[in-house]
Parts: sequence; C-alpha cells; structure tokens
Amino acid sequence: MSDQTVIVLGADGYLGWPTALHLSRAGYRVIAADNLVRRRWDSECGTSSLVPIKSMPERVRAWQESGGEAIEWRRLDIRDAPALADLIRETRPSAVVHFGEQRSAPFSMIDREHAVMTQVNNVAGTINLLFALRDHAPDCHLVKLGTMGEYGTPNIDIEEGFIDIEHNGRRDTLPFPKQPGSFYHLSKVHDSHNIHFACRVWGLRATDLNQGVVYGCETHESAVHPKLATRFDYDTIWGTVLNRFCVQAALGQALTVYGQGGQTRGFLNISDTIACVRLSVENAPKHGEYRVFNQFTEQFSVRQLAELVSEARAEHGLDTVVEHVPNPRVESEQHYYNAKHQRLLDLGLQPHFLRSTLITSVIETVERHRHRVDVGVLEQPNVDWKLGGTVLWQQRRRRATRNRGGTRPLTPRASHSHG
Amino acid sequence: MSDQTVIVLGADGYLGWPTALHLSRAGYRVIAADNLVRRRWDSECGTSSLVPIKSMPERVRAWQESGGEAIEWRRLDIRDAPALADLIRETRPSAVVHFGEQRSAPFSMIDREHAVMTQVNNVAGTINLLFALRDHAPDCHLVKLGTMGEYGTPNIDIEEGFIDIEHNGRRDTLPFPKQPGSFYHLSKVHDSHNIHFACRVWGLRATDLNQGVVYGCETHESAVHPKLATRFDYDTIWGTVLNRFCVQAALGQALTVYGQGGQTRGFLNISDTIACVRLSVENAPKHGEYRVFNQFTEQFSVRQLAELVSEARAEHGLDTVVEHVPNPRVESEQHYYNAKHQRLLDLGLQPHFLRSTLITSVIETVERHRHRVDVGVLEQPNVDWKLGGTVLWQQRRRRATRNRGGTRPLTPRASHSHG
Repeated sequence: MSDQTVIVLGADGYLGWPTALHLSRAGYRVIAADNLVRRRWDSECGTSSLVPIKSMPERVRAWQESGGEAIEWRRLDIRDAPALADLIRETRPSAVVHFGEQRSAPFSMIDREHAVMTQVNNVAGTINLLFALRDHAPDCHLVKLGTMGEYGTPNIDIEEGFIDIEHNGRRDTLPFPKQPGSFYHLSKVHDSHNIHFACRVWGLRATDLNQGVVYGCETHESAVHPKLATRFDYDTIWGTVLNRFCVQAALGQALTVYGQGGQTRGFLNISDTIACVRLSVENAPKHGEYRVFNQFTEQFSVRQLAELVSEARAEHGLDTVVEHVPNPRVESEQHYYNAKHQRLLDLGLQPHFLRSTLITSVIETVERHRHRVDVGVLEQPNVDWKLGGTVLWQQRRRRATRNRGGTRPLTPRASHSHG
Repeated sequence: MSDQTVIVLGADGYLGWPTALHLSRAGYRVIAADNLVRRRWDSECGTSSLVPIKSMPERVRAWQESGGEAIEWRRLDIRDAPALADLIRETRPSAVVHFGEQRSAPFSMIDREHAVMTQVNNVAGTINLLFALRDHAPDCHLVKLGTMGEYGTPNIDIEEGFIDIEHNGRRDTLPFPKQPGSFYHLSKVHDSHNIHFACRVWGLRATDLNQGVVYGCETHESAVHPKLATRFDYDTIWGTVLNRFCVQAALGQALTVYGQGGQTRGFLNISDTIACVRLSVENAPKHGEYRVFNQFTEQFSVRQLAELVSEARAEHGLDTVVEHVPNPRVESEQHYYNAKHQRLLDLGLQPHFLRSTLITSVIETVERHRHRVDVGVLEQPNVDWKLGGTVLWQQRRRRATRNRGGTRPLTPRASHSHG
C-alpha cells in the first residue's frame, strides 16, 4: 500500500468512478469526492444510466467487500471553496485527478442558463482548486481532464498542447491555438489557460489530459461485481457516439449519423482512460511545468464508427441500417484531422484498440439491460447549436422530469426564446 | 443626428464615459449603461479618482447643458441577464460598445475571491450579452474591449488576433496563441474565445479591440466642462503606469519602475481610444465575422516612459529620480516585443503620439488636484502576483474603507491565507 494520497474529483461519474477503483487497486490511498450533481442533471434531462449504478456509499462498500482497499467517500462541491481548501489541507494529496466538471457539449448549448452554469461551474471550480493547491499543497500534481475538442479541426497537424512557430524569421513554442465547438469545450479552454498561468506564476505542476471520445462500459476493476458498475449513457445529451451506436444496434434501430459523418475525432477505450490517468499520476512533471497529453489511441470518423458497428453485427448475421440525420451541431463534416498522441505511449500506455469483439461485448451489455431503455429518451430531439434546446425539447424534458418525480432542476426554468 | 443607437456598457468608467460623449457628439443616439460597481470597488480598495467626477445623472445633464444631444442613462448590471435582454430588445442597437468588465490586473490577483469574481463577472456578463444579441439584435455589431495583455510577450511578432501558420507542410490561419499574465487578462482571453465562437456558430459580428495601456486624462468632449471630467486613477490597483508616473512627478516623488523596467507594451492616448471605438462602430464587420484590432499607437518600455517623464520635467528645469522597486508581478523584464497595429490606421486613425507637452499637461492637471492626493494610497503595498494582497495590504485596505465610511464590499472579506 502506497502512502501516497490521490483525490479523485468527480468520482461519481462515468470515468471518475473506474479511475478511483483503478488507482485504489494500484495502491494509492484514494479519496473519492463528488457533489452528485450529475444524478440531479439526469432528473432534469429525463435521462438515466442504462446500466444500474449504486450510490457512492454502496459502491465504496462493495469495493471493500470485493477485497479492495478502503476508498474514502466525501460529498463535496468544488464550488464551495472553503470546503475544498479544507479537504486539500487535511489530506495533503500527492495528486488530484480532476474530473469534477460539467462535461456535456449539448447540455451547455441548451440555453443561456446552461452555458453560463457550465462555464462558471467549471472555471470557478478549477480556480478554487488552484488556490487550494497553492495555499495548502504546492507540491501536489494536478491531473486535469481536458478534451481534444479544445483544438477544433485546424487544417494543420494537432500537437500536444504546444506548437513551435516560426514567424517572420523568429521562433517560439506557444500554446496550440484553440477553436472549441461548444460552451462546454470553451470552458475547458478557459481552464487550460488558467492552469497554465498558475503553473507559470505559482510554480504549481499540472498535466492536462486532452481526452478523446471514450467508449466502452467496463474496466477490469468495475467488472469485479455488478455493484461496481459505472454509468452508461445512451441519450443525446450525455451519451458518447460509439456507445449510442451500440444501443441503437442492440435495439435494431438505425445508427443515426449527424450530417455527412466525416467528422473525425480521437477515440479511446475506457480502460485506456484510467491507464492514462494512472501513468500521469506515476510520472509527475516538475514544479512550474504545465504539460499537455493528447489522450486517445485511434482516430475515426463518425461514418467509420457506424461502419465498424455494422460490420460487428454482420459477423453475427445481423443487418444494420445507417441513417444520416440533419446535424444539430455547427461543425465541419469534412476536414483534415491528424492529432499527435505520442506522450502517453512514451510513458508506457498499451492501447486497447477498437475491435469488433469490444463492440459486440458492449452490445451484449446493452441487451442485458434493454428493459431499462427509455425509448422517449432515444427519440428526444437533439439540442440545436443555433437555437439551443428547442421548445419541443424543453417540453419533453419537463414531462420526463415530472414523470420521474424529478428533483428541483439546478438552473432556473426560464423559457428559452430565440429570435 | 443619426438614427443609429449605440449602447455603451461600462459608461461610468475611465474610458466608457468619454466614449459615450464622443459617440454622442458623432451623432449617435447613445445609451449609457453601468452598474456603478467601480465606485463601490473604490470604497473597498480605499482608492478614488484624483480628478473629481460627477454622478451619471449629473454628467448626462451637464452634457446636455453644454449643448450635447441627450444621452440616456441606465443603471444596469450585465450579470442580470433578463434586464440586459430587455435593454437590447427595447432599443435594438446597431452597436454595443462593451467596456462593462472588471479591468484591473492587480485587483484580480488580490485573492481567490477577486480572481473568481473577475472571471465570473466578465465571462458570464459577456455570455449574457451574446445571447441577448442572438435573440434580440442579431444584426448588432459588438465592439468589445479586450487587451494587448492577452498575447503576453511571445518571442515572435504579435499579429492582430490571427496568425498564418505553416506546419509540417500544411497551412491554416488560426487564433494567435495567448499567454495572459493575470486572472484579469485571462478573463479577456476567455471572452475572446466565447465571442469568436458566437460569431462562428450564430453569425453574430464582433470587433475585439485588443487595447494597449491608455494614458491621458481628458478628451475633446470631456474638457468642455469640469462636470464632464472622467476619472483619473493613480493608485497601484487602478492607475495605469504613465498616469501614475505623472502623479509621482507632480508630487516630487521618485518614479517607481517595477524591476528592470524592460517590460515593453503598446500605449495610446485616451483620445485615440475613443477614436478607435468610433472607427470600429462606423465600419462594421460582416455577419459571422470576428475581427481583432490591436488598439495602440506606440510601443514603450516602462523604463523609457520614466525617461520621457524625466525629460519633460527637465524642460521645466526640474529634476526627477527614477527608482527601481521589486517587481510585484511575475513577468519578463527583458523580452522581444513587436506587435502589429495596422488595421485601425487603415480605417483612418490619426494617432496622437506621446509628446512632452502631453506629459506636462497631465502633470499640470495633477497639480491642480494635488490636495486630493491620498498619500496612503500612493504608499499602499503592491498586490503581489505570488502571494496576492498581503496581510499588510489587506489591513490598509480595511482601514481605508473604514475611514471613508465605505460601503459594503462586493466580495466576502475572508482573510487571505498563503502557504
């Protein structure tokens, strides 16, 4: 058992929870913190995890009953700066893994309230953390989850955080220019600038993991017991694209590709996500260093992913229809994309590449839980990048919330107007 | 009289007020909006304008009594999104000039509360404005005040907002990389990304004025009557460097240069600021365009400015001492600096270059008001970039606030701790 303490912020989430398990297994003393707001947002959106998930106290107990070391569960909102500072001061972590942000692009595009809430929540929460580290744990290594979506789709190769520029006969290494595509992605760009500044000025050290789109539903540790399962989202707000295709395939529905489907992104398996976080924790940067790792293992276009799912189904003699639907987002549907992702490989990452067996296994998981699929959620209109959550979307969302006896929404329910 | 309406947000400020006057004189229907928070921050910091300034209703009345067209005064906080949306919907402006932000780097570095308040105030206020424009005035031209400080001091020429990059045999024009030097400057970078996004996705149009350091105390319009004067700050929180040197010179004090004084920045006369804003308003970009103008006229190092002030004094037979004090900021004191500033010249800007006569005239203004100088404020310790507002600073600030029977501070007075 290491005497090193790692705090995982956002430990109730899709990735936060398996990360907490993985770091616990790796020998760290893990403190799992979360404000549980994601479960409230489910109520607000009328969405829920396809795979049933337990409460944090139940999960932590199940981990110990399965032979794992104790994980300390703390309910904490990082917007509560004094509480966050107390946690850092009391536990003196050697690393903080920061998943504690609103992480859905469509959610951030619903309306003004969601845009502001996303940026204030993410940016102010991270500033609170930076000050807590400066004041109480200046040696601590901040491992922050960013996103490949910070870069957008430039017409040049995407480097890992910084780029050497020669201009008018002079040279410098500068932050890679950012062109994020939603208020959520923008919040991550803001975080990156703030964290970089804190490293330069205060000598903090940080790793910014610019993560690709994650797929998959279980890890080595989460598979130990059903009570350890992590959430699996399949709706248009929280679900990532490959997971949603698997749900559509399991239900015999058409795979819905936005527009031409030429949108190319970096992808990685959920097991690789947690390995990347552990590798980062194990290899801290020096004081004052802000380093960026592009955290993904393969590039695919959305159309290619749909084809891979179709092929995996065909191996079992099943036909799959691919349907192109109007793109609710404002984004290029055909573009150059070549993003570097070498630094985590250099640290020893052993990628799990996407294979039809993985796709089949995810589809099997979906089939085991298909009685839990809410068809209304699958049919929910997309949040439109120009208009926000349309009136229809808002109505369905309200109805879904009422039907679940939903809790009070986090943000005011002012009706959305668009000119 | 033009039938075009321009809203000036932050119209009670150093630059907002003379901009409102200038646009009124130029024939626009001007709506001057402000939440007056700057006057509250003066109370909090124990600072005040050297030149006496009138209340907004008095100023607006004085402008009309001096022959100006009516300026409509509205007390409004842009963090109040419904009120801001109402204003935009009711008045359908052809342009909004947005000075409505917390604009002091040292103020943003006092402590966590000030850092968070600065970023939330500036970023959320601007998002509120973007949504109000999208919903109620999508043709409106947003003229947003940014800062040259967004760029930092890269080792290459600074372009106006965007840079052509050739990389691994491919080319793109991308946002110029940003390395801002305070939580305030960071907030402007966040704004830039958010505004750029709103133009790309919603087709809004915006001009981002990356402004240099402004000096001077009056404009053609503000000089018409003493009641039209704009504020003149000389303290370490709100005062800009050349204005502060003029105050020190007038009082026969040493000019205090931070560190080596090799910090080079772009500077401009207050009269050029308002001309740049007017030129931008007169020449709107097309829909969907986000353009950046570097708004300054000359580059100087801090040391050069001190020498210019000394020379202006020597012309009147006066000796001036230049003193190098420890730099409270974390910044390069010797660096390459060459920033482009062509686009406003192309629109017709006629610069007022810095001459000894201007310096002498500012010093004369200070001398007229020297009975108003608060020596305690001049001696106030600097806000330290690593430690924030030190205990000593906080104590003096509290005392100053008490002595003025100060109003309730905007932010909580939690004592500042540093590790």
